[in-house]
Amino acid sequence: MDLRRNLKMIIAYEGTRFAGFQRQTNAPTVQGAIEAAILKITGETVNLTAAGRTDAGVHAKGQVANFYSTTRLSDTKLLAALNAVLPEEIAIQSVVEVPEAFHSRYSAVAKLYSYRIYQSEVRPLFIRDQVYHYHHPLNLAEMQNATAYLEGKHDFASFQAAGSSVKTTVRTVQLSVLTQEGPEIILRIQADGFLYHMVRNIVGTLLWVGSDRITSVQFKQILEAADRSAAGQMAPACGLCLEEVFY
Amino acid sequence: MDLRRNLKMIIAYEGTRFAGFQRQTNAPTVQGAIEAAILKITGETVNLTAAGRTDAGVHAKGQVANFYSTTRLSDTKLLAALNAVLPEEIAIQSVVEVPEAFHSRYSAVAKLYSYRIYQSEVRPLFIRDQVYHYHHPLNLAEMQNATAYLEGKHDFASFQAAGSSVKTTVRTVQLSVLTQEGPEIILRIQADGFLYHMVRNIVGTLLWVGSDRITSVQFKQILEAADRSAAGQMAPACGLCLEEVFY
Repeated sequence: MDLRRNLKMIIAYEGTRFAGFQRQTNAPTVQGAIEAAILKITGETVNLTAAGRTDAGVHAKGQVANFYSTTRLSDTKLLAALNAVLPEEIAIQSVVEVPEAFHSRYSAVAKLYSYRIYQSEVRPLFIRDQVYHYHHPLNLAEMQNATAYLEGKHDFASFQAAGSSVKTTVRTVQLSVLTQEGPEIILRIQADGFLYHMVRNIVGTLLWVGSDRITSVQFKQILEAADRSAAGQMAPACGLCLEEVFY
Repeated sequence: MDLRRNLKMIIAYEGTRFAGFQRQTNAPTVQGAIEAAILKITGETVNLTAAGRTDAGVHAKGQVANFYSTTRLSDTKLLAALNAVLPEEIAIQSVVEVPEAFHSRYSAVAKLYSYRIYQSEVRPLFIRDQVYHYHHPLNLAEMQNATAYLEGKHDFASFQAAGSSVKTTVRTVQLSVLTQEGPEIILRIQADGFLYHMVRNIVGTLLWVGSDRITSVQFKQILEAADRSAAGQMAPACGLCLEEVFY
């Protein structure tokens, strides 16, 4: 009888001091920290599969990862035990058993990211590592016009990381909204998949729109150009957060 | 002609890594950091007067401090220059010239503090240094009953720091409300003045009520006893924030 269970975790972390999600030999990573915690609690060396490999400095409220384990600890006890030994920048939100075939990455049908721009002359304090501080006023209405163009099925090649090679750069954006919340301008974007650096490149180009360097129509033209060299500079990692993964 | 101006600042800070507000010789303090910034920008050695001397680990969104300066920098330029050299845990929100006689402490008529309890089995992440994580369920309704007893003019001796000696332990609480906001239970308390450690001692005793160790009526009796030994253990500094000072 196979006692091996497939365990799915929802994970929140502050990415500031990590060299990203993916395990590395000589740098602190979220994956490395969680695998070390699992080893400590269960005695098992596991290989986490995550929905997405966030970059250094990027945060998550709803990263998903799964691993196979023969631990006899209940899901609730495992959750408490892992959180008790994890660094304070990582908090597992839940652990549940899922079917053998569940795969955090391949089973995902959509992901939701947020990007927080803090627009103020005075810098942010308590949230300083979770927002991108932008000193100058921004044209919100024009940014919102541009944001709306992202919805639907498009070739997002203009917003992929330079030098990327993927089979297709076509993705479907199900939701793309920009809201003002106090001093913050927040982009929420949900898609069936994201190209590498796609959200941060989109935000960098939206900031061109917000600072009236280009119009929202020119933003649309940059999208349609499907050419990386057309778009703006990538926005910093600290404003980005993987909010939720959908299955 | 006396060019000396009295400048009032509203200051926000994250108290976590400071040994409190008040200047000390061998420890990082908020006052020390701001006075060093003023020296750097204006060349003047000043003595900040603050509305209240918050303890190590206590935060502020609306601390007020004033100092006298002959700087010719405009208020706006001084604000930007000070923030540019201050550590990232301190953000001055505003600088305005006030009448010569204005005194941050003596001119204050009331202060508003908040105390954030984060009630959850899973620990807080992004806000971990701004809340007190309480693992066990709390009886909110009974805590709210107790909180209401604090309003009005009372002798708060039960909630002053052990060993304090002040002229009078009578204070008037203008507002005392406890609200649930998601996983947080937040006390907001405004008074014409606070005894040393008063809010944290109140919270410690409210947690007795919340965990059904005492009833709200017994809380009222502890208040009426005007005896420090009657009340609960002081709650940790990290949940406390000086929200606003009124003049």
